[in-house]
This record gives sequence, C-alpha cells and structure tokens, in this order.
Amino acid sequence: MVKHIMERFDSFLSYIEAISIFDAVHWNLPGCEIVEVEHASGKISASRILSPVNIPDKNKAAMDGYAVNHQDTVNASDHNAARLRLDGVNIAGGNAGLPLRSGQCREIYTGSIMPEGADAVIKVENCEQSDDYVYVYSPVLPGENIASTGEDITIGSPLLWEKAIVRPQNISAMNAAGIKSIMVYRNITIGIVNTGRELVTGQINNSTGALLRSFYQNSFINIIDGGIVDDSTDSIRNKILNLGSKCNIIIVTGGSSLGRKDLTTDAISEIGKMLFSGVAIKPGRTIALFDMDSTPVLSVSGLPVAALLSSLIFVNRYIYNAFGIELTEKAPAILDERIHNKTGFTTFQVMDTFEKGGELHARPLETTASGRISSLLQGNSFTSIDENLEGIEEGSRIMINVIGDIKWE
Amino acid sequence: MVKHIMERFDSFLSYIEAISIFDAVHWNLPGCEIVEVEHASGKISASRILSPVNIPDKNKAAMDGYAVNHQDTVNASDHNAARLRLDGVNIAGGNAGLPLRSGQCREIYTGSIMPEGADAVIKVENCEQSDDYVYVYSPVLPGENIASTGEDITIGSPLLWEKAIVRPQNISAMNAAGIKSIMVYRNITIGIVNTGRELVTGQINNSTGALLRSFYQNSFINIIDGGIVDDSTDSIRNKILNLGSKCNIIIVTGGSSLGRKDLTTDAISEIGKMLFSGVAIKPGRTIALFDMDSTPVLSVSGLPVAALLSSLIFVNRYIYNAFGIELTEKAPAILDERIHNKTGFTTFQVMDTFEKGGELHARPLETTASGRISSLLQGNSFTSIDENLEGIEEGSRIMINVIGDIKWE
Repeated sequence: MVKHIMERFDSFLSYIEAISIFDAVHWNLPGCEIVEVEHASGKISASRILSPVNIPDKNKAAMDGYAVNHQDTVNASDHNAARLRLDGVNIAGGNAGLPLRSGQCREIYTGSIMPEGADAVIKVENCEQSDDYVYVYSPVLPGENIASTGEDITIGSPLLWEKAIVRPQNISAMNAAGIKSIMVYRNITIGIVNTGRELVTGQINNSTGALLRSFYQNSFINIIDGGIVDDSTDSIRNKILNLGSKCNIIIVTGGSSLGRKDLTTDAISEIGKMLFSGVAIKPGRTIALFDMDSTPVLSVSGLPVAALLSSLIFVNRYIYNAFGIELTEKAPAILDERIHNKTGFTTFQVMDTFEKGGELHARPLETTASGRISSLLQGNSFTSIDENLEGIEEGSRIMINVIGDIKWE
Repeated sequence: MVKHIMERFDSFLSYIEAISIFDAVHWNLPGCEIVEVEHASGKISASRILSPVNIPDKNKAAMDGYAVNHQDTVNASDHNAARLRLDGVNIAGGNAGLPLRSGQCREIYTGSIMPEGADAVIKVENCEQSDDYVYVYSPVLPGENIASTGEDITIGSPLLWEKAIVRPQNISAMNAAGIKSIMVYRNITIGIVNTGRELVTGQINNSTGALLRSFYQNSFINIIDGGIVDDSTDSIRNKILNLGSKCNIIIVTGGSSLGRKDLTTDAISEIGKMLFSGVAIKPGRTIALFDMDSTPVLSVSGLPVAALLSSLIFVNRYIYNAFGIELTEKAPAILDERIHNKTGFTTFQVMDTFEKGGELHARPLETTASGRISSLLQGNSFTSIDENLEGIEEGSRIMINVIGDIKWE
C-alpha cells in the first residue's frame, strides 16, 4: 500500500492578508518596446504622448459651401441678397490659393484650407449660385463653419496617457499628429503548467489548461503553454524553472490539493520562496503563492473554475498594481436573489446577469461547486462577497465582472 | 476656373427608414470553416455542440479524504468513533481499484475514481488516521463529497450555442468532453478605402482610416486596408471592384461630402446599386449605401468620428441580423446632464461615463463636432437620441456603448 500523508490546512489566510502579502513584493514587470502606432492597438502604453502639432494645422472649411468674409453678408436677407463674385475653388488637398478679396467668395469643400481674407463658410444649402455669382440670403458669423487651427487638438495636449490601453481613438489621434511609433510595455507573459497523472494518462482532458489559456490570452497578455507534467517533484520543478525566465507570472494547476500539496510545494520551494498556502476564498482555497526571483508562481486547484477564479485574484492584482488597469470588464447590477456566504470566506459567486427595465440585474447560479464548468456555461459573470458578510440581500447593488454574454432586452 | 456642381441633399431618410432598407437586403455572409477548438476563441460558432459524454464520466471524489460507505458511519460521534480499516489508496489518474468492503475505507484524492461499494468521501479534516485505521467522528451522507457521473455536464447538454461568440468556458467544456474541432463562421471581412487628394498629397494623415481599421479589427472581424485612393472615378471604382470579392462589407471614406458625392456615387453606381444617400443622423448624415452583388458598400464622411459612428450603425446591423451578436459592449447609465437634440435627427452623442455610488453615470461631451477626434479621447462611450426627441432629461436612464475606459471609483 502506498503511504501518503495528508497535511491539513490548519488555518487559512484571509483574502485581505493574502492580497497584502502579494502587494508587498516588487514583482518583475515586462520591459518596454517601440512599436508602430498602428500595431499598438490594445497594448499598454509606456509613456504619455503629447501632440507635437495643432489639429487642424490651418483654418479649414468644416462644411461644403463658399468661403466668405462675414462682413460681406452683414445686411443679407431674403429680400436683399448679398451678391458675391465667385473667384474660384479651393479643393480638398489643395492649397489656400490667393487671398480672397472683398465682395468675392470661393467654392470650398470640407477639409479644404481657407483662403486668407475669408473668415466663414456659408453652407451650400443657404445660398444660390448663378453663373459666376453666389447669392447669400442671411448673414454669417465670423468663424462659422470653420475648423480653426488647433480647434480639435492643440499643440501639447495629450493623445495617449501612460499605462493605459491603447484604443483606436488614440491611434487615430496619433496618426493625425504624424506620430509613427510609440513605447509600449511588452505583453505580460503568463506561463501555465498543468500537473496531474490523470492528465498524463488521458483519463481526463486538460480542460483547466484550456480555460486558463483562452481566458488570459488577450491583446496585452501572451500565454506560454507549459503543457502537462506528471506528479513528480523533479518534473514540476524543472518545468517551472524552465518557464521562469520567459514569464512574468506562472500558474501551476492541480498541485494544490491536500494530496499533492507536498509534491508541488517541495518542487517550487527548491526554486522559490513560499509566501502563503491556503487562503479563505471560495472556490480555490488551496491556492499557494511562491516568489521565484520576483516572478509570482501561483499553485492552484486542478478544477477549472477554482483554478480560474483563484488565479484571477492575483493576476488582476499584478496588472492593477503595475498599470492601474482592470483585466475583466465590470458593471453595476441589482441583485435579484439573496446570496449566502460562509462567514470567514471571501466567495466568488458565478452569476447570471441580464437587462430588465433598463438596468442590469444579476442572479446567483445554484451551484457553487468549484469544479463545475457548467456554471460558467450557464452564467456570464461573477461577483465577490466579503468574508465578513453572511450574504448579500436581494435588491442590493453589486458589482459584477463580465465573462460572457449579458442578456439584453 | 474648375466648375463644380454642388448637389443638395434635398431630403434625408430617417434612421428607421435607412435601417429598414438595409435590413431588406439579403447581404452575403461569411462561409464556415472547421477550426481546432482551442483556436476558436472569440470566433462566431456555426453550430450548437452537445456533449457526447457525461462529465464526470464516472463517480469521482470531490475532496481529498477517505472513500467510505456511509452506512459504516451512521452511529459515529465524538465519543464513539467509527473505526475503518484503510485498505489502500486511489490516486488521481488511477483506476477504481478493488471494490470497497464493509468496515473499510480508502484514501482518495480530488478527481480520483470512486471504488465500487463506496458512496461518500469523508474529508481528511473530519477524521484521524492512526496506523492502518481511520477514526470517523460524525456520520456522512450518501453522495457526500462525490462528483457523481454527469453531475457537471450530462450527455446531450449544450457546450456551445449556434451563432454565439466562442468563450473560454465553451472551449474548456468542449475540451473536457473530448471535442477537438468545431465549425465556426469565417471572420467577417471589412474592406476600408480612404479617398481624397488631401490624403494622397499627405496634406493630412489618414487618421480616419487608422480609426476604422483598429476599431473594427477584432477576434471575428478581419480588415483589408484598401489604402488611399485619389479623387478619381476610375481609381475608386477599380479599388472597390478589386476588394469586392474578398470583403463582406466595404467602407469608403471621404466620398460622401457634397463636393465629392457625385464622384463616389458615379464610381460605385457603375458596379452597384445605390439604396440611399443621406440619412437624418448626426454625425455622418452624408452616408450612402450601395448594394454591390449583395455586398454592402458604405460611403461615409472623411471625418473620423462621423465615419466611425455612421458606418457603425450598419456594421452593427449586419452582424446583429446575421448572428444576433452586438459588436460594441453596452451598459445602462444615469444621464447626469441634459442632452439636446435637433428633432428629426437621430444623434449619436459622445459621452463620459463613470461610476458614482455603485452606479454608472454619463455626461455628454460639449463638442458635437463630428470631425473632432479629441471628443473620443475625452469620452469613453456614446449614446443615441431618437429623432422624435428634443433631448433626454437629466436623471434619465440611458444605454451607453462603451468605446474606452470607464472611470471606476
């Protein structure tokens, strides 16, 4: 008979304590790199970018119509049209042309440079052209229908903020300002190692690995799949050691249950320092954290939902501490059914969130089983319940984290 | 002097009419392809997938502890421990082993197959082991701490729905069920052509193209950059014709202003049928729609915000009609400041959305200038105002579309 010794988790750290231990370490961060602006979408910016130019760079027409000097239209009315001689056209992409003389107007198109001497554009709808003359029936104001120099963006105003996700609008603004490349953080690299003989033998498929890999992969996170490792201290240690230099965060699944804790703990303890083991969270209370040369190594459950929700706490924290960015999308919702909680545990409850009467409502899923992937198929979100609470009352406003399709009316 | 004829937009279609004209066409849709499950993340599924197996496939331990028959623990108490002989261990990844006999128990680990004759797992915390005996101090219920066959997912239950975005939890569940590949829709391909001499000459940068390309590119949309085309009927027609066979949707920017409408209209009319030109929306009222062999060709403003918000109406509609999927993320919010509207126009208003007291609040940005990319830098969302409304009152509940970072408390 094989002799295993089952160690108990004698006590669990509170969620708050675990977070504060995590926060106290100066974890390694990804370095920076220069990328072309158009390849920066979804990356985390590493510096604030201020506009080197005014946009527009010159006064331009904001409408199709006729460039005029407003003084020539002061007395215009339905019965007393101002008659202006058409002196030509400023096409888009062309130059300002000759200065406009008094009593004249010039055909002009949205985006065209205004001629000197003109201070307004009269919309084509508000006048009539007959041969070389344009008849204007109402006065225009100075600056009317003009996009004046710097009106959109003035020199020195921010086009991108530091430690922000680069959005299409930032890319567009930087493009407009002629900025070709910027500094961004390299993608955060998360290594994922799945341990367990049942995976090696193929008795079960590696659905936990599949969940973590596709959940964490995004525009600013790369995944390195460390594959499946047998229940052996040497294999686990070597795999993690090998991933260490390439990863900012390592997640090891399946090594946190009582029966395997020693194995994984021994393996990682040889190459890193255990900071805690066992946190009062549900699901995933068996989570352990190691510091391997300033790389956080998280040893989590082999069950998919527990592995995801417990690792997410610390992956979120890593990203938030470093960049102030939230990994999962949040939304406020009204709780439609009381959630129970076991005091002393911070619980992550899978929820079904839907729109009702213009507001989001959320209902807890019945199952709290941490191994049930079906709860994530039926739900689309989760919320957290503080360890001091026995539950959250129906009708309370809660914050949900969105992980699926919210049902809209 | 070059002679241009400016045509007026004599009337604008209402938003509703434009939508119903768009909806009446059977637009081409992307075909389907088979992909490996793990490469399907973020794609649109083309069929419902039902589980071919039960998960778990056998009764398994849901806790680390000892497999027992509950009848052996019926009278157990603090003062009268049930004494069970330890007959071995079922490791994870191993088989069920010999059937468990009465009066015996077996060490077992989360995920291990239960031995025949055992119907519960007693947690390691709730008993004591001494040599070859385990002392149990309280009765267990039949089924306690067991994940029974099909408890998570039963044969025939859905792992993925048709026409849904494939999420990490779908991938995990399909992986668990041994499904290797699935049918998804090929990515929707959007071709983007930017016209205008001011782009060709480099007088201004193509910030509108940059905005559209990075906004629309996502896990289920590919972009083909048609580049910059001069203001020439031939060039525009040939470029669109060339893109036609590769694209599901084509967006042509810069050809919808009055001064260029004829040019673009002539170009596209040679290869497609105009369905409308001019819609009562702000910004982007100059938008025109063509049907080119069942491919929608949208001719939109050259100004970035107008080009984005007006094309988005119809790109959204295409995707929603075909798949029931929303392209932009939505959220309900409380309006913190009245929005004005010009009756007769459906207005898309850029908003700044933030959390206050556990709810989302939104404030309109001052500028409504359709050319101002700065509004998108300052805002993070937009809302729409119905053409029949003169505005939306402060305190109303509105729905916002999220396009940036919401400010959380």
